[in-house]
Amino acid sequence: MNQEPIKKEKILEELIEFKEKDLKFSDGRILGSMCTSANSLAKKVFYDFLDSNLGDPGLFEGTQSLEEEVINDIGSLLSLEKPYGNIVTGGTEANLMAIRAARNLAREEKNIGNIAADEYIVPELIVPKSAHFSFEKAADVLSLKLVEADLDENYQVDIGSVKDNINDNTIAIVGIAGTTELGVIDPIKDLSKIATRNNIYLHVDAAFGGFSIPFLKDLGYEIPKFDFSLDGVCSITVDPHKMGLAPIPSGCILFRDKKYLEIMAVEAPYLTTKEQSTLVGTRLGAPVAATWAVMQYMGREGYGENANECMINTHFLADSLSKEGFELTVEPKLNIVSFNHPKIPTDDLAKMLEKEGWMVSVSSYPKAIRIILMNHIKHNHMVEFLDTLDEIKANLDIK
Amino acid sequence: MNQEPIKKEKILEELIEFKEKDLKFSDGRILGSMCTSANSLAKKVFYDFLDSNLGDPGLFEGTQSLEEEVINDIGSLLSLEKPYGNIVTGGTEANLMAIRAARNLAREEKNIGNIAADEYIVPELIVPKSAHFSFEKAADVLSLKLVEADLDENYQVDIGSVKDNINDNTIAIVGIAGTTELGVIDPIKDLSKIATRNNIYLHVDAAFGGFSIPFLKDLGYEIPKFDFSLDGVCSITVDPHKMGLAPIPSGCILFRDKKYLEIMAVEAPYLTTKEQSTLVGTRLGAPVAATWAVMQYMGREGYGENANECMINTHFLADSLSKEGFELTVEPKLNIVSFNHPKIPTDDLAKMLEKEGWMVSVSSYPKAIRIILMNHIKHNHMVEFLDTLDEIKANLDIK
Repeated sequence: MNQEPIKKEKILEELIEFKEKDLKFSDGRILGSMCTSANSLAKKVFYDFLDSNLGDPGLFEGTQSLEEEVINDIGSLLSLEKPYGNIVTGGTEANLMAIRAARNLAREEKNIGNIAADEYIVPELIVPKSAHFSFEKAADVLSLKLVEADLDENYQVDIGSVKDNINDNTIAIVGIAGTTELGVIDPIKDLSKIATRNNIYLHVDAAFGGFSIPFLKDLGYEIPKFDFSLDGVCSITVDPHKMGLAPIPSGCILFRDKKYLEIMAVEAPYLTTKEQSTLVGTRLGAPVAATWAVMQYMGREGYGENANECMINTHFLADSLSKEGFELTVEPKLNIVSFNHPKIPTDDLAKMLEKEGWMVSVSSYPKAIRIILMNHIKHNHMVEFLDTLDEIKANLDIK
Repeated sequence: MNQEPIKKEKILEELIEFKEKDLKFSDGRILGSMCTSANSLAKKVFYDFLDSNLGDPGLFEGTQSLEEEVINDIGSLLSLEKPYGNIVTGGTEANLMAIRAARNLAREEKNIGNIAADEYIVPELIVPKSAHFSFEKAADVLSLKLVEADLDENYQVDIGSVKDNINDNTIAIVGIAGTTELGVIDPIKDLSKIATRNNIYLHVDAAFGGFSIPFLKDLGYEIPKFDFSLDGVCSITVDPHKMGLAPIPSGCILFRDKKYLEIMAVEAPYLTTKEQSTLVGTRLGAPVAATWAVMQYMGREGYGENANECMINTHFLADSLSKEGFELTVEPKLNIVSFNHPKIPTDDLAKMLEKEGWMVSVSSYPKAIRIILMNHIKHNHMVEFLDTLDEIKANLDIK
């Protein structure tokens, strides 16, 4: 560390060099990210609320009110009149909170995972094989056995497999509304029935889909129910910083009942709050204010337009790829396209694309090139991308 | 949620009303917070890096380099040439990561806390009674038995009590360099010896003290060793967003060895990184860049001046209170003053102060008024505060 202070101007100058090594969403080359460039209003608001700490909410009552409004608004979006929850750092913290609530409840109600019990019962968590890796993290952190349910031919969770894996030690089932790799929506209605019948907690990970499915439904897209309108759903993860266009870090966890927050509340002495249920302690208020602002600014109509545009680009890309001899993994339901070429190994194709400046990502199951059509990806970017694929095929003598 | 988009101007206007309900650090009335107003350069840099996500570091290689530099600089501050770690959301996440590393290591090396073992052994964590409540959270989250060691007459952890509580299931011991309630520094050297002798992980929570003790030592303050210069110390939590003057959320966890990060790494498919050891997934790059900037801007000298000024205000307040018939809980070693009046119940005094606009906090052990002399608290604020205390005493007919 430097001994003497360095001048502002020199610091800012040096930072420009670092910043130039970061990629920009606006270049349209980041094809594998579920995040996007934050809206300029949201960025201004973020800046204005940089000092606000919701870990000590009594000092920042204005920001606390904004959080309540955001939680209520997202609740109404997901068919829950009185939601309980928080704006958190993202989908991982939200998923961890949900599973922690389920485990703590199982400790109290069923003696599962209770370290004070005579015999320790290991809690089990059932997730689709397509679940985000944050559930593997949750299992490690929370000391759970992770049980993966199989997928069916559409890469949705196989309901029979979920049923087969339920036992007395199951503390929760997870369903996904917009898988990270394919954008597939699990049959949440069936999961809800199973969860209710077996008295097991059901969490829905809608980190990606939660801020687009409701608006696409408004526009007439046929997507089955996935939210709190289904009785069995206890909690939903939804990320404003994905399709909600809020700046990172803005995740959201919503619970149907207050008891889920209470069961994991830790007493917070010397702060202006009595207890804390989030995983994180110091909580930046800025993303809350920024999320509030961007939600007002977009409105249901604005979000609908955005989701629809992303879907139009998605269908354009998917259709073009099909015509060009590429194979789609699934017919896109949300704005993700997953594909392969029968004659080019996936990793090779990814490397060739990266060499041409396209930051694609490769999914693990099934192995495929994965493109997220976020709003920073415009039609012209996709035309250029298809041109690059043409060139790659030409170089490999593939017609 | 609103159906139609709302105009920018209207949104910003409405936000002003919310913001007015938040308190401002610059008013000098927030006496119970370890955070402070962010430096203006840091805020500008934060804004410039708002799109950068270190959860997907391959896209943001510039910001990733900044994180490496910050980690190395903080490592050098804490006597560790090659540190491993991350900028995280704050002390809570940092403490959770450290204890998770210790537990995961105990799983592998000692079969403690291993859910796949024939018989499950409950891991035990020893913390001083003065530990931050994030360790209670860590114990709940990580399924540990929390064992509280007693304090001695100076409110430092009692070494005998720590020794008495060690058993075969102990996975870690925690020492604190700047307790949240009193700013007391535990005898880390003794803890280091015990940890080494018993082959137990030692974590130091220097969230508050880590960014002031090294500078105060530079200036000749007599403070014993507390960092990686002691062999037994495996990890240290230090919060740049406290005495480091970085904007929230900027915490830091440093490990002595790479294995501590590796033992809790979860594979991260489809991202530009192979694995993730942080608790949180999406990680805002902005606080990393802002912390880098503010550290350069301050330098060791600037931080020394800041820490020293805070100590001068601390001694002024402590001495004045003593003269006015108040009783100090301890002689301040860092910039926290804890006091009571023999004739006024603590909670009553806190309420009377709050009524006069002073946001003080009340510590739990011992019960006392707790003032953190952060750099937003200036000499004149303390003079006004002492005036208020005079008035309160006069109203109660206390001389």
